[in-house]
Amino acid sequence: MGVFTAPENLSGHEQVVFCQDKHSGLRAIIAVYSTALGPALGGTRFYPYATEEEALHDALDLSRGMAYKNAVAGLDLGGGKAVIWGDPGTDKSEELLRAYGRFVESLGGRYITACDVGTYVEDMDVVAKETNFVTGRSEDHGGAGDSSVLTAFGVYQGMRAAAQHKWGDASLAGRTVGVAGIGKVGKHLIGHLLEEGARVVATDVSERAHDWLKANHASVDFLDTTEALITSDIDVYAPCALGGALNDETVPVLNASIVCGAANNQLAHPGVEKDLASRGILYAPDYVVNAGGVIQVADEIDGFSFDRAKRRASKIFDVTGEILRLADAEGVPPAVAADRLAERRMANVGRLRTILLP
Amino acid sequence: MGVFTAPENLSGHEQVVFCQDKHSGLRAIIAVYSTALGPALGGTRFYPYATEEEALHDALDLSRGMAYKNAVAGLDLGGGKAVIWGDPGTDKSEELLRAYGRFVESLGGRYITACDVGTYVEDMDVVAKETNFVTGRSEDHGGAGDSSVLTAFGVYQGMRAAAQHKWGDASLAGRTVGVAGIGKVGKHLIGHLLEEGARVVATDVSERAHDWLKANHASVDFLDTTEALITSDIDVYAPCALGGALNDETVPVLNASIVCGAANNQLAHPGVEKDLASRGILYAPDYVVNAGGVIQVADEIDGFSFDRAKRRASKIFDVTGEILRLADAEGVPPAVAADRLAERRMANVGRLRTILLP
Repeated sequence: MGVFTAPENLSGHEQVVFCQDKHSGLRAIIAVYSTALGPALGGTRFYPYATEEEALHDALDLSRGMAYKNAVAGLDLGGGKAVIWGDPGTDKSEELLRAYGRFVESLGGRYITACDVGTYVEDMDVVAKETNFVTGRSEDHGGAGDSSVLTAFGVYQGMRAAAQHKWGDASLAGRTVGVAGIGKVGKHLIGHLLEEGARVVATDVSERAHDWLKANHASVDFLDTTEALITSDIDVYAPCALGGALNDETVPVLNASIVCGAANNQLAHPGVEKDLASRGILYAPDYVVNAGGVIQVADEIDGFSFDRAKRRASKIFDVTGEILRLADAEGVPPAVAADRLAERRMANVGRLRTILLP
Repeated sequence: MGVFTAPENLSGHEQVVFCQDKHSGLRAIIAVYSTALGPALGGTRFYPYATEEEALHDALDLSRGMAYKNAVAGLDLGGGKAVIWGDPGTDKSEELLRAYGRFVESLGGRYITACDVGTYVEDMDVVAKETNFVTGRSEDHGGAGDSSVLTAFGVYQGMRAAAQHKWGDASLAGRTVGVAGIGKVGKHLIGHLLEEGARVVATDVSERAHDWLKANHASVDFLDTTEALITSDIDVYAPCALGGALNDETVPVLNASIVCGAANNQLAHPGVEKDLASRGILYAPDYVVNAGGVIQVADEIDGFSFDRAKRRASKIFDVTGEILRLADAEGVPPAVAADRLAERRMANVGRLRTILLP
């Protein structure tokens, strides 16, 4: 697979930069999908891919996703992503991270990096010794810290918008929400839901998550499996664990009216969005409702303000509603409507640069 | 073939940048092999490659070659090269060239472009509307013009250095030189050789070249084939046409003591340099003696002066001699000595940046 000859869902990138520093062992691919709305923001994944093609695939796929997410989130940022091909446990070093930082700097701000799988705020502090184009820093360096707080808050806002659209009332009081995955985001989400008076059932593969639930939220029912959760009597399903939660096995038995959760890539393959629609299940697109994290990280670029970032994340309520109405108006599933909204914003706002400001 | 997983002779690049602009149809690969000595200079080839892999192969191969050539030429420039994947006859447009120029600009000067196969000084004037990092411009824009003059002059200086090394006397007076290829460079070279009192025999596939020779240099013997030329009674063989002139067919029958010509990639495959050495034929490495053209184009970066560029090109005499002596001293063929000289300069001069100048 080549950059110009990738399958359609992985193609259309403005720029893909292979970077190598032999001494430190750095091999990185920085993919810039679009800069129509501004510098391409997206994290750096440090992962021991089996092949170069696998690394390229991830960079192309994830950078495209970031462009759509950032566009719908209303950020003045394009979409990009980088991968470092290596084992973060053994290959990560100050030298390698700083070499990477110099390559990020060499792009002059067309790409802004942040944390992703295998990289942490401390790593971004090292990268930042060589480049200004980095966010997701540690709190000592103006960083926003844990992004799960606003991610959960955004999902909660998206869920309220879906309820408004489905039932004419944004309130979740009295509704039953099934949360699959009690990680950092799931925990915060459960807090919001209980506070509003929703009933929550939850599941997680980890016994420690179950213990946490018993200790902190005794009112929440714990179910042993995701299968049990999605077939129980729930109004809303919130996938908050791995991708692919909505697939040919789960959608036919899903006993919920709304899907709205924090997990990435919830639709296992193209077509699942139609299966949900034909069952009358309202799907709040994953990348729309889970944008709180990137909103938080993006806020850092101007000097982090939690209150400002939270206000921005609260707008996920508005944009989710807009997308669900657009889906109805254009007769397409919400996932398609979200993509259209992103593409229209990139085209229409990107076009504004054609107006010369001498 | 991937960037990081290319064969050894195509690997080791600092940066390889895939650039795409859907509207204009631009698909370009900018390969930066090394910036140890300065910005990576190398032309842009516009060519209808059959596959993306073929385009990548050319970019990787040619950029590496430029790094070695620029290093040995004593330029304060690294080595790079770009390819635009398309048919210059049908795909070239102002929009596409300017889109390409914006990507060159986005690298902030790590890469400087110029003409190559399929691009012309007029194209560089268009590219220059979007970037400062371009040379090989038209004369209206400070360009150096036809680079064949100094290319031929440099080959002539390299030949004199080889004569000095082989025979203890740099003079070519009375020597017989066989010139294969009477193109722009070949014509100028014949002029230098006759002026010094050498005897010249020449060949070319074109009847027009033969006519030119009869009209301008009646003293030069024209032979019908390269085979006839290399087996005739010559002291020096100057390949000035396509690559691969030195191969398993030609080297065994070559009747010359020195090979020194303007063609690129004269050695058809690795090992030919040893075959030449074992037959006692002194080979002046192609990229060392044909650097006059890039010396001219590089001179443009500071505002072109023909006299200064010619003085720089005259140093091809010195560096060719240095390489031939190094080959003797280290017991390797001159082609290997040239590579070593390039690698040492990149390592040693590149290292100087470690001395902090606050």
